[in-house]
Amino acid sequence: MRMVKSLARLHEQLRKLPGIGSKTALRLAYHVLDMDERDVQQLAQALLDVKTRVHLCETCFNLCEGTQCEICEDKERDRSLICVVEQPQDVAAMERTKGYKGLYHVLHGVLSPLDGIGPDQLKIRELMRRLQDGQVREVILATNSDVEGEATAAYLANLIRQTGVRVSRIAHGLPMGGDLEYADELTLYKALENRREL
Amino acid sequence: MRMVKSLARLHEQLRKLPGIGSKTALRLAYHVLDMDERDVQQLAQALLDVKTRVHLCETCFNLCEGTQCEICEDKERDRSLICVVEQPQDVAAMERTKGYKGLYHVLHGVLSPLDGIGPDQLKIRELMRRLQDGQVREVILATNSDVEGEATAAYLANLIRQTGVRVSRIAHGLPMGGDLEYADELTLYKALENRREL
Repeated sequence: MRMVKSLARLHEQLRKLPGIGSKTALRLAYHVLDMDERDVQQLAQALLDVKTRVHLCETCFNLCEGTQCEICEDKERDRSLICVVEQPQDVAAMERTKGYKGLYHVLHGVLSPLDGIGPDQLKIRELMRRLQDGQVREVILATNSDVEGEATAAYLANLIRQTGVRVSRIAHGLPMGGDLEYADELTLYKALENRREL
Repeated sequence: MRMVKSLARLHEQLRKLPGIGSKTALRLAYHVLDMDERDVQQLAQALLDVKTRVHLCETCFNLCEGTQCEICEDKERDRSLICVVEQPQDVAAMERTKGYKGLYHVLHGVLSPLDGIGPDQLKIRELMRRLQDGQVREVILATNSDVEGEATAAYLANLIRQTGVRVSRIAHGLPMGGDLEYADELTLYKALENRREL
């Protein structure tokens, strides 16, 4: 027997999602069958809404539903600070710390010549334009610490330094509460290299 | 910052799914944002279709899109055999073996007095009605081997025996390719008890 057609189709669609294998997709499909019709409608609507309503902020390219994101619109934010991140997810992660009160700039990727991603494919030109009005005092580069992230940070640092704006990189070192014994070599090396005088 | 509203709503809906935690739901929500609009529409439609199109077969209560399931409609099937299972998923599992050519009957649950599930909450009356026309020669009880499944099988066996129809229970024993050494005691006990003369 083939599975009931619409169930097979849902199974197939769910399997395409990242981290959802065939068995999980099947379990989810059967679960949907048992869900209240109203809940399924809400889920379907939520999926569609995300695609139609979420746009990129015109200023910082973070996610938003209007033309500007909540952070750019927030008058309490320190407009002299811009934190540059790779993805909107990184903004959410930074915001969870509740320690940063400046603005953001989302690059939407990192430099990766092998994948054909150069400066023009990222929101770099837009970042440089934001630095022109002299309001920004410092740019914090918070790209990831993998090869592409570091290369992108180096490229941006060089570019921004020429405008006279201060550039910094977020610190890499031992995670708080982390055990020296279990730290990987690279992190430990970075932690040593970046030691601060007390 | 709160998350963008529609993203937060999708996150919340996805979290309700079984086996999807908060982090997985978030990753999926961001993934949906990156998906093609057409793919998202297909996924949403597949969700809705499952709820509106899938019904229960009038005869065996397996899933179907018409009034009768493919198995009940299949003229090649042996109509003198009925395999009783708990859930539609079990029909799918049995069909994957490709070894069974009879019909099914899906109970949609097991007897569970503590949860208020008695014979009237299951499709038991409907099963007994199928045995009345004298066409059925044997009923195979394939409920699970947990307490409720065994109790349901015992209850049904008793009921069916009174109609004169043969009743059998699927075999429990060592899984094929399974190692004696690693079998749990109950399975091993069952395997010994159910030994066959060669």
